Amino acid sequence: MSVSLIPKLRGVLSPVLTPFEADGSPSVPRFIEHCRTLLNHDVGLAIFGTNSEATSMSVKEKRALLDAVLAAGMPAARMMPGVGACNLEDTAELARHAVTAGCGGVLVLPPFFYKGVSEEGLFRSFAGMIDAVGDASLRVYLYHIPAVTQVGISLALIERLLKAFPGVIAGVKDSSGDWDNTAAMLKEFGKDGFDVFAGSEIALVDTMRHGGAGVISATANVNPGGIAGLLHDWKNDDAMARQAALNQVRAVFGQFPMIAAMKAAMASGLHDPAWDKLRAPLVELDRIQRESLLRQLDALGFQLYRGQVEEAAAH
Amino acid sequence: MSVSLIPKLRGVLSPVLTPFEADGSPSVPRFIEHCRTLLNHDVGLAIFGTNSEATSMSVKEKRALLDAVLAAGMPAARMMPGVGACNLEDTAELARHAVTAGCGGVLVLPPFFYKGVSEEGLFRSFAGMIDAVGDASLRVYLYHIPAVTQVGISLALIERLLKAFPGVIAGVKDSSGDWDNTAAMLKEFGKDGFDVFAGSEIALVDTMRHGGAGVISATANVNPGGIAGLLHDWKNDDAMARQAALNQVRAVFGQFPMIAAMKAAMASGLHDPAWDKLRAPLVELDRIQRESLLRQLDALGFQLYRGQVEEAAAH
Repeated sequence: MSVSLIPKLRGVLSPVLTPFEADGSPSVPRFIEHCRTLLNHDVGLAIFGTNSEATSMSVKEKRALLDAVLAAGMPAARMMPGVGACNLEDTAELARHAVTAGCGGVLVLPPFFYKGVSEEGLFRSFAGMIDAVGDASLRVYLYHIPAVTQVGISLALIERLLKAFPGVIAGVKDSSGDWDNTAAMLKEFGKDGFDVFAGSEIALVDTMRHGGAGVISATANVNPGGIAGLLHDWKNDDAMARQAALNQVRAVFGQFPMIAAMKAAMASGLHDPAWDKLRAPLVELDRIQRESLLRQLDALGFQLYRGQVEEAAAH
Repeated sequence: MSVSLIPKLRGVLSPVLTPFEADGSPSVPRFIEHCRTLLNHDVGLAIFGTNSEATSMSVKEKRALLDAVLAAGMPAARMMPGVGACNLEDTAELARHAVTAGCGGVLVLPPFFYKGVSEEGLFRSFAGMIDAVGDASLRVYLYHIPAVTQVGISLALIERLLKAFPGVIAGVKDSSGDWDNTAAMLKEFGKDGFDVFAGSEIALVDTMRHGGAGVISATANVNPGGIAGLLHDWKNDDAMARQAALNQVRAVFGQFPMIAAMKAAMASGLHDPAWDKLRAPLVELDRIQRESLLRQLDALGFQLYRGQVEEAAAH
């Protein structure tokens, strides 16, 4: 059982895009401003996710960025930093830093270099991290994103971890894109206070109807009001129509390399070309891709940060 | 053109297995002893490779281990540390450390988290590392191991890197297991002083016949004398027979998770159970696997470190 007094993470979180300066270093002011806007849309901060280019940053860079966001007054309880690395020392260091800061939880990738590893090996990996952090207020959200890691989090592994570390194993982000898998996680473990977050808003209504905790979605970076709005209203009569509208926007971004496309939308919407920068091995959209993206978004009436952004700006 | 005065790496190198203490920390004395034995068999030290569980160690741990091996008097010129990580800062830090120490070269994985990345993105990644190291004596060996990374090094990428960084881009380790690919690398670039190392001794004779520089092979950890011996004698009449014998030994290890199997052979051959330890997510062989491995090796007359080990011990 958890001894943490921090309220549980709920609702929509965004794997926060990381803006970079021309010299490649993280752009702290842009990051803080983006985090603030997301919070103003009631979107929590899953900083250092896949869409944050987190694995392209060192632990030192991520620690500094987390410190900067906290120093700017953002609430740690609304944060779920990604901390997973291939090695235990780095994973534990960033997790410890996040726990000490009071973060609501940490999102943990399995070690993803070796392929075809055993359930026992993955169990030891998570167990080793939890032991190394050594803090009862640690809340681990398992990150299942097999298309990228090629190393998945099976139901059997979740069961074993839950038994060994009740309260610490707090939930999962299921980015498999496979609703059957999300449904199985909800059915098997959802009742034990294990919080299942869908990995994309495409499964938002379905996930909430089946007792999920929320959604952690890339496109919540650019469409936070729309996604958080539906999370709030998923029981309403118009939920499926709004779900369909969100899916349309997502599908446009999904035609392109997703992170580059979202950064192009940020650069365009904020009139700030600096947002276009990505770290290698990712690259920005080319001119033809960018024009196609913006044309299609325009055709859908998409506007960056639409929703509560005007109210947020008025605060 | 390279300005380095360090002799080029040649022949057989081993991705040196990393022994761990019971508490999980690298076992420095065992590592040094193993490195010394390999050198005594004329096997160079590709420390921090895939078979070294390098991605399961932090940069700090790897720096300390490299320093310990150097302090023990091992020649840096015979070393090709693996330095590739998903992020530039870590890759550049370890590469800089290796270059400053006088290492013969560094073996560089592409960033391996994101899949389906572009040639441009990978070019930027290697270019960024070379720029960040900023030392003309840097020699980069590209590490092509697509079954693990899922991110390959194409011929087009090599061509572009060679043009942009002549002398710095020194060669490749081809662990594709695809002879046609190795042959294409040798044919396209072998003449330009670009050194192609086969990723396993299975292609030893073929690689040397086509102008390759040598072999970087996992099993050189346990069979160094046999492999280095054939590298020395590949023009002899009995080369193909000896190649077949090496392949037999390799095939036995290949029936099991390779790193765990080699560690089991080390533990058995050195009568030192500590060698059995792996870092998560890898796990040691179970009893049945171990017995099967040792029985099959025994049937082949395999002995750990056979070859020049007696002479080495006499030095």
